[in-house]
Amino acid sequence: MMNVPLTLPMMMERAETYFPKKQVVSRTLDGIHRINYKELGLRTRKLSHALEKLGVKEGEKVGTFAWNHHRHLEAYFGIPGMGAVLHTINIRLAGQHISYIVNHAEDRVLLIDEDLLPLIEAVQDELKTVEAYVVMTDQEKLPETSLSPVYHYEKLLEGADATYEFKRDIDENAPAGMCFTSATTGNPKGVVYSHRSIVLHSMALGLADSAAVSESDVAMPVVPMFHANAWGLPFAAVWFGTTQVMPGPQFTPQALAELIESEKVTLSAGVPTIWLGLLRELDTGDYDTSSLRAVLCGGSAAPKGMIQAFESKYNIPFIHAYGMTETTPLVSLSRLKSYQTDLEEEERLEIRSKQGTMVPGVEMKVVGKDGEVAWDGHEMGELLLRGPWIADEYYQDDRSSQAFVEGWLHTGDVVTVDEEGTIKIVDRTKDLIKSGGEWISSVDLENALMAHEAVFEATVIAVPHEEWQERPLACVVLHDGSHVSKQEMYDYLKPQFAKWWLPDDIVFMKEIPKTSVGKFLKRALRDQLSDHFALAND
Amino acid sequence: MMNVPLTLPMMMERAETYFPKKQVVSRTLDGIHRINYKELGLRTRKLSHALEKLGVKEGEKVGTFAWNHHRHLEAYFGIPGMGAVLHTINIRLAGQHISYIVNHAEDRVLLIDEDLLPLIEAVQDELKTVEAYVVMTDQEKLPETSLSPVYHYEKLLEGADATYEFKRDIDENAPAGMCFTSATTGNPKGVVYSHRSIVLHSMALGLADSAAVSESDVAMPVVPMFHANAWGLPFAAVWFGTTQVMPGPQFTPQALAELIESEKVTLSAGVPTIWLGLLRELDTGDYDTSSLRAVLCGGSAAPKGMIQAFESKYNIPFIHAYGMTETTPLVSLSRLKSYQTDLEEEERLEIRSKQGTMVPGVEMKVVGKDGEVAWDGHEMGELLLRGPWIADEYYQDDRSSQAFVEGWLHTGDVVTVDEEGTIKIVDRTKDLIKSGGEWISSVDLENALMAHEAVFEATVIAVPHEEWQERPLACVVLHDGSHVSKQEMYDYLKPQFAKWWLPDDIVFMKEIPKTSVGKFLKRALRDQLSDHFALAND
Repeated sequence: MMNVPLTLPMMMERAETYFPKKQVVSRTLDGIHRINYKELGLRTRKLSHALEKLGVKEGEKVGTFAWNHHRHLEAYFGIPGMGAVLHTINIRLAGQHISYIVNHAEDRVLLIDEDLLPLIEAVQDELKTVEAYVVMTDQEKLPETSLSPVYHYEKLLEGADATYEFKRDIDENAPAGMCFTSATTGNPKGVVYSHRSIVLHSMALGLADSAAVSESDVAMPVVPMFHANAWGLPFAAVWFGTTQVMPGPQFTPQALAELIESEKVTLSAGVPTIWLGLLRELDTGDYDTSSLRAVLCGGSAAPKGMIQAFESKYNIPFIHAYGMTETTPLVSLSRLKSYQTDLEEEERLEIRSKQGTMVPGVEMKVVGKDGEVAWDGHEMGELLLRGPWIADEYYQDDRSSQAFVEGWLHTGDVVTVDEEGTIKIVDRTKDLIKSGGEWISSVDLENALMAHEAVFEATVIAVPHEEWQERPLACVVLHDGSHVSKQEMYDYLKPQFAKWWLPDDIVFMKEIPKTSVGKFLKRALRDQLSDHFALAND
Repeated sequence: MMNVPLTLPMMMERAETYFPKKQVVSRTLDGIHRINYKELGLRTRKLSHALEKLGVKEGEKVGTFAWNHHRHLEAYFGIPGMGAVLHTINIRLAGQHISYIVNHAEDRVLLIDEDLLPLIEAVQDELKTVEAYVVMTDQEKLPETSLSPVYHYEKLLEGADATYEFKRDIDENAPAGMCFTSATTGNPKGVVYSHRSIVLHSMALGLADSAAVSESDVAMPVVPMFHANAWGLPFAAVWFGTTQVMPGPQFTPQALAELIESEKVTLSAGVPTIWLGLLRELDTGDYDTSSLRAVLCGGSAAPKGMIQAFESKYNIPFIHAYGMTETTPLVSLSRLKSYQTDLEEEERLEIRSKQGTMVPGVEMKVVGKDGEVAWDGHEMGELLLRGPWIADEYYQDDRSSQAFVEGWLHTGDVVTVDEEGTIKIVDRTKDLIKSGGEWISSVDLENALMAHEAVFEATVIAVPHEEWQERPLACVVLHDGSHVSKQEMYDYLKPQFAKWWLPDDIVFMKEIPKTSVGKFLKRALRDQLSDHFALAND
């Protein structure tokens, strides 16, 4: 068989060749922007050429710091199209984490959304490798900025060659993309995606039993393009000639509902917080969502009631999915098997609310204290994964050996498996809190708290939250005789963390329950405080 | 990303793990046989082990000579599962071609259907490498046979280990399968499929915009498993946990119609001759075919009227596809793009009757005399293909350089391309006739005819035929004064060819029209004689 590498340029060329008329619709700050794949392809080629002219070499990293829109999509293909590596930077990270990952990745160029400039300006002095800042803006003129040297994205493209030929002889195992994920403690850890992994993952997204991404779809990735490549949806959608709707910077529930109606969106993807917001919006407004054939939900577990509301109230099929930055990210989807469709509604809902079965290409093991667990829906174990789109290391990071052991990724998620091989996440081995699809390190918060002179001991736990699924709650024991107010504690934490990392509440206690060997009994605390926010809301 | 090779064992293990209850239904000479994927997996492991015990080594070839049934499916995975190569032998080849390909592939073991034994017995003295003959039979006892050493398939399995572990560390580029295709002249040419190509091709079959093979399907490959792996359907179906219906040796139109109704077949695949037969059967019988969501048709061009009859008369969606043994085989499918669905019925039918657009992963060029042709639906050129499941050579064959040039497979098919990139086959550069999905070499027939002492010149052309799409017609000019009857000519040809290769008619002429350089003007002859069989039928 021919040795044809699986690379991203092949995907973009297919869109240009067979679907030149199909559109990418972006909701910008100025309104709706439309571009077809023919034009997008030409602009993507220009971007590749412009990056070459800026001096970017094969294998070097180019960072993006941007919302979901057509220019970001051009970067998705234009950067790997000339052999460089697309590094999507999570705009929600704290400043010191942003500078760390840009430096660690050695980004040569950063492509930045105009409205996000201040976040990069704030850390520019820390950035050691960036040789050019490119501002993605709809305005004629560059905005005022302290960044230097700075370029106007559109002006760069004007001077570039639309007949640029994408690199087709790239090794399929060469890096194409990169994304950092928060660690239990310390700096984020980098995951490098190969061309091969992205192509195979895109195929998986197109499978009839997976997301079934099709040319006939209108796909709206609400999950940010700086989050595990918006779950790979933009890549797959380009390859299959799918119309794309990019919600841009202001993806309020109302904006999403309006886009679904006006653009006749058939498929969307986002975290539970997004769908909860949309559900509330649908409850209050009068929207036509009949075009939707499926919403994909991942990043955190979706509450059963929400799945039911989507399906029975609005007739919108809801697909629960599971994955992580380390897994490109699609690992499993919860779809009924053919012989499960006759079950009672409650049973079907029960299955649908689990994380599903492995998509073709991904294999799992669930390992408890005594080896692989029974598939009985009760025994719990850590989920281990392997497959051609599962990472085998963190980028130049000593912490790799903790997660990647003997060919398997140890996810840190604790699951049960039922008789059908359907997994259900029941716990987490790592001290991480997932708020609206984003990780928060409880350990980092604890370390900061414990560094306060008045604090004797402190722990931070994840407490269920209706809108964000989980929010951090700090439990603090002060030294005898010390007195610190809640406000003083917040003032102390604020400069050290992104705003949304701050605990929703700080509870002062006399003692934190511990195990026999002195470890915090977080589970006991969680049980004790599980309705803390619910009560607070009353 | 993990270096997990794309191999066949991964596919079978998925069926065993997640779909143990799903079934493979075979229609044998004795009736309906049912087995689920759990049992099938165990038997497949036993087959792998049994082959090892017979002395088969990694990389060696094991031939199958069989209809579509569960044992053949076991061989599909059991042979590559222990690292050997599945060589599916076309049972319709002439004896000298069968012995050629078995010898050329150096098959160590042959798995043979009981009812096909005579065809192998007839050539056994020519076979140089076969060390064991295994008879696939439902009977307790081995049938009488002159083959030696001979084994009973079921007895071999009885003595083998069901806990055998498939080889998972195979290089994905290692050979997994092999199939020969008829040449313009001389011996068939071998195509070797790698594990990688079969896995990627299976993914392509599962894409929503392709065949969308799903767990919820009941797939019935009518196209023989000795024909380009039944278009890869059995591989994909195992991976996706799809129920399979294997029609066995007697796939008469009535048998197929009955299976569709009784097994609730949703997806089937076959050549136009099969669908024509089914259509006639549906016209005469009273069958419930409402379960069918699609029939895939390839191997030869499907007449527009047939597509229309399936869709408007029986409400069975008809998908025209294109491929060849060299391409694993799926290359293109004719599906409407989303914006074409509003066209008038006649226009839609026109598009649907073409061979379609390339599936993701396959790229094409259409090259005429002056380079790539315009995409105007008129200009004609030869179809060139490349992709990870397109062959790059014929197995140990000097003729490779004719078809594989500078990284592209030259298909020999002449096509037009319309503005949407949809190809339509209009001619063939090679002197081959395609009868009911099988190739016949006009050159070999011509050489035989011209070797007759009374023949001055002769040519064999493909003439349209309602049932077989094309049939050979011989045009013969005798030497002045020579007299040979049609019957004498047939008697002369018969010992040299398979029965179905013989021309349907022999036309004696005074002269064969020629080009200026003396080449036969086959196209003029075809035009002149295009309704030869139609008239003969009147």
